Amino acid sequence: MTIGLKAVHVSYVAHFLAVLGAILVLVWTIGFRGGLAWESSNKNLIFNIHPVLMLIGLIIIGGQAIMSYKMLPLKKPQKKLVHLTLHAIALALGIIGIYTAFKYHNESNIANLYSLHSWLGIGVISLYGIQWLFGLVVFFYPGGTPSIRKEALPYHVLLGTFVYILALGTASLGYLEKLTFLENNGLAKYGSEAFLVNFTAIVTILYGSFVIFTILSQAPPDEEHDQYGYTPIQNE
Amino acid sequence: MTIGLKAVHVSYVAHFLAVLGAILVLVWTIGFRGGLAWESSNKNLIFNIHPVLMLIGLIIIGGQAIMSYKMLPLKKPQKKLVHLTLHAIALALGIIGIYTAFKYHNESNIANLYSLHSWLGIGVISLYGIQWLFGLVVFFYPGGTPSIRKEALPYHVLLGTFVYILALGTASLGYLEKLTFLENNGLAKYGSEAFLVNFTAIVTILYGSFVIFTILSQAPPDEEHDQYGYTPIQNE
Repeated sequence: MTIGLKAVHVSYVAHFLAVLGAILVLVWTIGFRGGLAWESSNKNLIFNIHPVLMLIGLIIIGGQAIMSYKMLPLKKPQKKLVHLTLHAIALALGIIGIYTAFKYHNESNIANLYSLHSWLGIGVISLYGIQWLFGLVVFFYPGGTPSIRKEALPYHVLLGTFVYILALGTASLGYLEKLTFLENNGLAKYGSEAFLVNFTAIVTILYGSFVIFTILSQAPPDEEHDQYGYTPIQNE
Repeated sequence: MTIGLKAVHVSYVAHFLAVLGAILVLVWTIGFRGGLAWESSNKNLIFNIHPVLMLIGLIIIGGQAIMSYKMLPLKKPQKKLVHLTLHAIALALGIIGIYTAFKYHNESNIANLYSLHSWLGIGVISLYGIQWLFGLVVFFYPGGTPSIRKEALPYHVLLGTFVYILALGTASLGYLEKLTFLENNGLAKYGSEAFLVNFTAIVTILYGSFVIFTILSQAPPDEEHDQYGYTPIQNE
C-alpha cells in the first residue's frame, strides 16, 4: 500500500499541522484553562499538563520519530539514532503525561482507570514501550542476525503503525471526554472553547494521518532504501 | 507494508470478533437499555438503534466488504460485485443509523452536531459515500481506462483504509460519549454495564484491526492478484 507522492513533501504538511496543534493545545490549557502547574491548590492546572505532554510529546514528537526515516537526508545509522532517540523522548513525555493524569485524579479524589480513554491509554503506552525495547534490541543494540532483522522488520513497521493509530484514537477520546465533562458542568456546547478543543482534535487526527501518509510515500531516490525507506540489513 | 500471514486465516479472527461484537451490542441495547424501537414514547429506544446499525452495519458489514477481496475463493468480477454490494449495504445501514441519532435528538430536544463524535461521523459517512461512488464509476460502471484504474487503485485502497480507521475511531468516541452521559446520570463507573460497553468498544477496535491486517496479509496464491489481492486491470 504505497502511494506515488514524495515523503518529504507529505511531511511538510505534517510539520505545519504539528505547529498548529501545539499552539492550539497551549492556547486551550493556558489561555482558557488557567495554565500549567506541577503543584497547585487548583488541581485543574495539574491536569492541564496531561494534554500538553500527550499531544506535543507522544503524538507530535512520536510522529516526527516515525517520519524521520523517510524525510531526513542522512545515512542509515544516523537516521536510526534519530528515530530511537525521538521515540525515547516521546515515550518519556507520554509516561510523565499519564502520571499527571493519575496525580490530578488522586489529589482531586476522582476515580482512576474506569474509562475507555484510560484503558486504551495504558494499552498504548505499554505497547509503545514494548515496541521501543523490541526495536532497540533487534535493530540497534545488540541487534539481531540479518535474517532475524529481515523477518522482524515488517512486524516492527506494522506494530509501530498500529500503536500510533491507537494513540491518535486515544487522544481523540481524551478530547471528547474532557470536553463532555466541561459541558456537563455548564460549558457552552457551541462556544469558542468547545470549538477550539474539537478543532485541536481534528488537527491531531490530520497530523497523524499525514505522518502515516509519509510512511506510505516515496523516500528520496538517492538514498539506499527498501519499501519502508531504509535497508533493514547492512549486508544486503 | 505487507505481512507473511495468510489473509483467510487472519479473517477467521475477524469473523469471530464480528459475531462477538454483534452479540455484545445487542445485549447492551436490548438487555440493559430496554430494546429497540423506531417509534416510542421512550425516546431512548430510538437511540438504541444507532449503535446497533453503526456497529453491525457500517463497521461489521463494511469490514466484510473490505475483506471479501482477500478471502473469497471467487473470480475477480464476482468479488468486485460482492465488495460493492456489501459496501452499499454498510453505507445504507450507516445512513439510517445516523438518521436515528438525529431523530432521537430532535424528539428529545437534545442539541445536534456539537460533539467530536458527530463531526467525525458526518465526515466518515460523507467520505464513505464519495469513496463508494468513486469506486463504482472508476472500477465497475462505466469503468475508467486501464491506465486510470491503475493510477486510481492505490488511492482507492488508501482512502478506503483511512475512512475505515476513521469510522473505528468515531465508533470508539460514540461508546465513550454515551457511557459518559450515563455515568453522569448515575451509572456505576465500575459496574457491569460500564464494563460491557468498554469491552464492546475494545472488540470493535480489535475487529477493525484484524480487517486491516487481512488487507495487509497474503491473498490465496492460486488466485490471480496484485499486491492488494486483485488485478485492477483486466488486460494486464
